[in-house]
Amino acid sequence: MHHTARRRFVTHGLALGVALVARPRWLAAQSGGPANPGLIEDLVAANRILVDQGVLDGYGHVSARHDRDANRYLMARSIAPELVTASDIMEYDLDSNPVDARGRGSYLERFIHGEIYRARPDVKAVVHSHSPSVIPFGATGVALRPLYHMSAFLWAGVPVFDIRVASGEMTDMLVRSPALGRSLAQTLGARPVALMRGHGNVVVGDSLPQVVFRAVYTEMNAKLQSQAMLLGGNVTYLDPEEAKKAEASIAGTLGRPWELWKRKAIGK
Amino acid sequence: MHHTARRRFVTHGLALGVALVARPRWLAAQSGGPANPGLIEDLVAANRILVDQGVLDGYGHVSARHDRDANRYLMARSIAPELVTASDIMEYDLDSNPVDARGRGSYLERFIHGEIYRARPDVKAVVHSHSPSVIPFGATGVALRPLYHMSAFLWAGVPVFDIRVASGEMTDMLVRSPALGRSLAQTLGARPVALMRGHGNVVVGDSLPQVVFRAVYTEMNAKLQSQAMLLGGNVTYLDPEEAKKAEASIAGTLGRPWELWKRKAIGK
Amino acid sequence: MHHTARRRFVTHGLALGVALVARPRWLAAQSGGPANPGLIEDLVAANRILVDQGVLDGYGHVSARHDRDANRYLMARSIAPELVTASDIMEYDLDSNPVDARGRGSYLERFIHGEIYRARPDVKAVVHSHSPSVIPFGATGVALRPLYHMSAFLWAGVPVFDIRVASGEMTDMLVRSPALGRSLAQTLGARPVALMRGHGNVVVGDSLPQVVFRAVYTEMNAKLQSQAMLLGGNVTYLDPEEAKKAEASIAGTLGRPWELWKRKAIGK
Amino acid sequence: MHHTARRRFVTHGLALGVALVARPRWLAAQSGGPANPGLIEDLVAANRILVDQGVLDGYGHVSARHDRDANRYLMARSIAPELVTASDIMEYDLDSNPVDARGRGSYLERFIHGEIYRARPDVKAVVHSHSPSVIPFGATGVALRPLYHMSAFLWAGVPVFDIRVASGEMTDMLVRSPALGRSLAQTLGARPVALMRGHGNVVVGDSLPQVVFRAVYTEMNAKLQSQAMLLGGNVTYLDPEEAKKAEASIAGTLGRPWELWKRKAIGK
Repeated sequence: MHHTARRRFVTHGLALGVALVARPRWLAAQSGGPANPGLIEDLVAANRILVDQGVLDGYGHVSARHDRDANRYLMARSIAPELVTASDIMEYDLDSNPVDARGRGSYLERFIHGEIYRARPDVKAVVHSHSPSVIPFGATGVALRPLYHMSAFLWAGVPVFDIRVASGEMTDMLVRSPALGRSLAQTLGARPVALMRGHGNVVVGDSLPQVVFRAVYTEMNAKLQSQAMLLGGNVTYLDPEEAKKAEASIAGTLGRPWELWKRKAIGK
Repeated sequence: MHHTARRRFVTHGLALGVALVARPRWLAAQSGGPANPGLIEDLVAANRILVDQGVLDGYGHVSARHDRDANRYLMARSIAPELVTASDIMEYDLDSNPVDARGRGSYLERFIHGEIYRARPDVKAVVHSHSPSVIPFGATGVALRPLYHMSAFLWAGVPVFDIRVASGEMTDMLVRSPALGRSLAQTLGARPVALMRGHGNVVVGDSLPQVVFRAVYTEMNAKLQSQAMLLGGNVTYLDPEEAKKAEASIAGTLGRPWELWKRKAIGK
Repeated sequence: MHHTARRRFVTHGLALGVALVARPRWLAAQSGGPANPGLIEDLVAANRILVDQGVLDGYGHVSARHDRDANRYLMARSIAPELVTASDIMEYDLDSNPVDARGRGSYLERFIHGEIYRARPDVKAVVHSHSPSVIPFGATGVALRPLYHMSAFLWAGVPVFDIRVASGEMTDMLVRSPALGRSLAQTLGARPVALMRGHGNVVVGDSLPQVVFRAVYTEMNAKLQSQAMLLGGNVTYLDPEEAKKAEASIAGTLGRPWELWKRKAIGK
Repeated sequence: MHHTARRRFVTHGLALGVALVARPRWLAAQSGGPANPGLIEDLVAANRILVDQGVLDGYGHVSARHDRDANRYLMARSIAPELVTASDIMEYDLDSNPVDARGRGSYLERFIHGEIYRARPDVKAVVHSHSPSVIPFGATGVALRPLYHMSAFLWAGVPVFDIRVASGEMTDMLVRSPALGRSLAQTLGARPVALMRGHGNVVVGDSLPQVVFRAVYTEMNAKLQSQAMLLGGNVTYLDPEEAKKAEASIAGTLGRPWELWKRKAIGK
């Protein structure tokens, strides 16, 4: 599959050379060439893993920045994540225009992805979900904080994006324009997670394994923090210094759950 | 399958013409002819989907208005929803009398369905369930309100039907008569959801995909709202204007989870 | 299977006539003859259903009174309920002595069953479990009350058996003697459910389908009542008159979940 | 399998005799010889059981003391517990150095195991997990106490290890050195369970079945105790005398869940 895809890329390159004037629009647009099939495979796996782990249901989406063109990203057509296969993966530019739609529909909120990739060169993967345990934090303004080392990446705080404030009017709650996407990216800043009031959250990472890990443990932290707060004692969160150190150490272990999750997701 | 069903319908039509006096009671009653097999298939799927999604257990029922006769509706015989197949689907008139029972038993509470179809011409599908997270709201009078865009359809408020008040006496809690069904339909009014104190809830929609979507996200909203209230901050619900806009936007996406849910339910 | 079992019973009867002096102990003891194979099958199914429904885990047990001898009951040897097959079912007298152990071990707490069958001629089936949502009620003394019609059978109140009070001393918490079994039966009285402080609960019924139904909905009521109490409003429980009527009506529908549950449990 | 392994051990013994000077390092180190294959099989099963029971996810580890050499222990290479097979099991000395790594990676926190085996000759098996319901207790200092007989082993109290106090500085939260392992072992003392603030817990036992049982019911007790505390009444925990007696009685029944869990874990 990798071999075949590479050959197709070479063919595209040749075509680009000999047919500069007449080249079809979709080909011209694919300046970077096709993405690495391994990245596509990981993106398909990420969709299914996030369903298996209770982060996504019939809604939500995960994307990856194109590995050959930093101004492109890859994401499934408008379909439930659990059903995504390689042929559903589309390519978008950073304005979130599909490069070669071929009749495939796009998620209304793809601007979340495009604008974050534009604002954050370090980000290679983005998850937008309605991760259930996180919703109550976005609706109450109770701060989500790292309860244990697995969610240490939350140390810099988790901002809440309120679309009503951002847009200055009543919306349909959807990040359905570049302007709203930019506004959400501003709220996110340099952090890994932002909540969206009355909606869900967005998580970013430097790879698909990292963004999946963060999305899973953001959900888990929300569940555990709720329970800790109900127990009634004083909750001790990780100190920022502890959290920074823990985040760095855990970063070296992400392959462990990823290997497990991917094997189960692909084996289905 | 569709073809066969249509032919059977034509035959019925002919029989109706040539045998007006002697026609059997069940045939006369089927003035609209058999329902579209696709509708039957969706109704079977809806039963199983609602079990998969934790809305129904061994109890509860989902119905669809007949596509050829607005004065009829379709619902399974008295059987656990998970076991429903096409041959279990029966046809009822709006008095909730079975048109052609052939020995098949009926749900005691079918009047919920018949009376709502009578009162609400816009309604094409009805779910009655004991959806677990919703029960505590019906028992406490704490208002169920839309916490996020997925349950935006709750914006007009969720009334609680108290059968003791409606009937003026102690009952067995079951909506087992046309009068009680009418009373419940009045409480529901023009809204999509009504709770039933000490019992469960009823959800209506303009199609099976919509009513299933609403039943699933009514349960989810109840779960998330409970958690948000326990977190202890002020809960910000969707503003009615936001919710109306969100409801309209989400309406265009119902095919996405429906495709997923149906594929999984039928594949079983 | 039924046929074979009946023939074996006839053979036993003959043996009883011709070999009165020399008859083996186990044969003499089987005065009622073998139980109906359908009852054995239902008892095996009940074990697995209660695991499927989250009432039993690796511990707990369900028994049925012998259909031919009211002074006998049937229960699995000491084994995890999920693993029970017909050959694991043993027969006990009301002193909870095994009639024909053949080396098979017995549950330490079988006296719960024997003493309830002795005290309650109306009872045909007993479940003892550590049903999780119920444990906190037994430990806090917060009264378990019927929140909805499915658990209407709780209307007469749910007493709590405290083994420390009953025995007048510190025990190992286990109902491991006839005296403790009698004491628990007294606490239960004429009711369907009793909690056991720091341990679990016992549920009785007039059949296996009824006792399984009651055990499942006792667990569900405990879960929903906890959630309702946390919501913070006033909880409206079923009025006893409503509950009595609801219990009577629901009694006619037990075949519906039983058919579903048994099909899934046996199909495994 | 047992037979084959024993023969391999004999071969090793011979090699040890004839090649004393030139013997490879890994062979010299295996002074006790290979572990019993039955112990390896149980250790593989324990990994999978703890995932099935919700104690482990993609992280955490379980070990067993070597049955032929009390100064050695066995644990999987650094891999998700659900994926562990016999070939992943490595041998460690009590300094937590791998005896024969052959390129296989080690868990960063193996010192938890080595130092507990050194400090506690009675301990034959250790589980380290992020068991979810237990995390909030470690973060709040609310004491985990035995709510029912299944978790009676908690009677002596459950200490909380705070790595910041133990190390006197901000750490990455991981027990990644012998010194930190010793400190945790000191906090544990003679007890079966210790919590780790902002991290998880450690559970010990005199066998794999016992440590698995304890890890499962520590998680369950945490869940049930949280619910009991929320119900708002006074929670009655087991009296220490009751708990000691219950622990002794339950100890005789551990084979029952172990048989079930192992059959399901291995059957996968």
